[in-house]
Amino acid sequence: MKKNILLKIKYDGTHFAGLQIQPRQRTVQGEIEKVLSKIAGEEIRIEPTSRTDSGVHAICQCVTFQWDVNLPTEKLKYVLNNCFSKRQNRFRILSDIEILSAEEVPEDFHARFSATGKTYRYIIHNAKEYDIYRRNYVYEVKEDLDFQSMKKACSYFIGEHDFKSFESSGSNPRETTVRTVTDMRIERVDEDIIIQVTGNKFLYNMVRIMVGTLVEVGMGRKKPEDIKEIIQAKNRTAAGHTAPPQGLYLLEIYY
Amino acid sequence: MKKNILLKIKYDGTHFAGLQIQPRQRTVQGEIEKVLSKIAGEEIRIEPTSRTDSGVHAICQCVTFQWDVNLPTEKLKYVLNNCFSKRQNRFRILSDIEILSAEEVPEDFHARFSATGKTYRYIIHNAKEYDIYRRNYVYEVKEDLDFQSMKKACSYFIGEHDFKSFESSGSNPRETTVRTVTDMRIERVDEDIIIQVTGNKFLYNMVRIMVGTLVEVGMGRKKPEDIKEIIQAKNRTAAGHTAPPQGLYLLEIYY
Repeated sequence: MKKNILLKIKYDGTHFAGLQIQPRQRTVQGEIEKVLSKIAGEEIRIEPTSRTDSGVHAICQCVTFQWDVNLPTEKLKYVLNNCFSKRQNRFRILSDIEILSAEEVPEDFHARFSATGKTYRYIIHNAKEYDIYRRNYVYEVKEDLDFQSMKKACSYFIGEHDFKSFESSGSNPRETTVRTVTDMRIERVDEDIIIQVTGNKFLYNMVRIMVGTLVEVGMGRKKPEDIKEIIQAKNRTAAGHTAPPQGLYLLEIYY
Repeated sequence: MKKNILLKIKYDGTHFAGLQIQPRQRTVQGEIEKVLSKIAGEEIRIEPTSRTDSGVHAICQCVTFQWDVNLPTEKLKYVLNNCFSKRQNRFRILSDIEILSAEEVPEDFHARFSATGKTYRYIIHNAKEYDIYRRNYVYEVKEDLDFQSMKKACSYFIGEHDFKSFESSGSNPRETTVRTVTDMRIERVDEDIIIQVTGNKFLYNMVRIMVGTLVEVGMGRKKPEDIKEIIQAKNRTAAGHTAPPQGLYLLEIYY
């Protein structure tokens, strides 16, 4: 009987060609499977909750996998983190992947299918000067953004809607584009505008298109009330631009 | 008559093999000379104030160079920044080098020889959990650091001393290892400990060894008063470890 294991992981998406494994590219899935397979002595495949694009980060991503390796699961976190980071002189060179926890879960638990919802965070740095040291971690917007308009616009997203306007064109055909946004918050912290969206499931690029549209509201190119019509249009061209990947963080997954 | 030009630049040292040009390596000097030489149609060499090692950042570094290119100097900043960054779809992919200013200076002005002093900043992230998104920008120290002891230790560095104990062994022979630290400050900002050191000139790795020694004071392995004896020893082995490069920022240069 194989053990079913849930890993919670954090990563910096900057130097990954996304989460999903791809030939000849460095991916989060590829790096984790390589190490797990080495420990197991056989090929191990993991199932993530959410595919994230190149440049997108995860403060907490979940993956499940099965194996029968005789290693106490509570030690797996340390073993894996040791494999990812290197020592150089007296210092540990920290990796861009960090295992937050490893635990055994019931055999019917699945990182993706068992998830009931998740929260994404998006960080906009709204300042006159860009911050070179955060260029891979925020969306730099130099134009003045009207925070109150953006806040008002957020309220129109909450609830069950057909979010077809907020899906990248060319997405795989799917049963429905109806999704439920259960919570959406926006706050200003110094020069940052931080947006958090919670929902059951998300369409491809949905959060990034929502944020791009909010930025256009903040710039005065769209009105907060326009969000209602954009949703009704069910057409990608009605919404704003797709905000860049580096401001997006997968924050939490609910089971 | 060639124009003598002073560039002030900012960079993220993470993906450079240091400032100084080296064959087959990506360096700050190499990247800037490549672009300037292309514009000039002949080889342009720049003179920086300070060589920084791989991983070390500059919030403001200065370089001078001479050329007779018929381009208004006030436009040079925009031309260069455009060369460094790329456009991808609607977004500018920000570069890890940023030109802050370009100005014409008198012909006898030299980025290095005209400098009368400079300030370095060092950032320690002192928290139980490391921050994956800042791993290239701070020194992660998980052990509790006694801030008051570190602050007291700082005071012993101020003044004119022979800093031989704070020079990496194997440095090039030089006339004297006497240097003047005119100011040294330490402050706590949330989980960060920020140290700023101002002096006339610095020995190789001097700030990083000072910080490594301060960290050992903070951990209780050395006493604040020990700094006095470490200076008197004039021996590298008396001081603490060399703090890693990624926490160090060249902050300001004085003329």
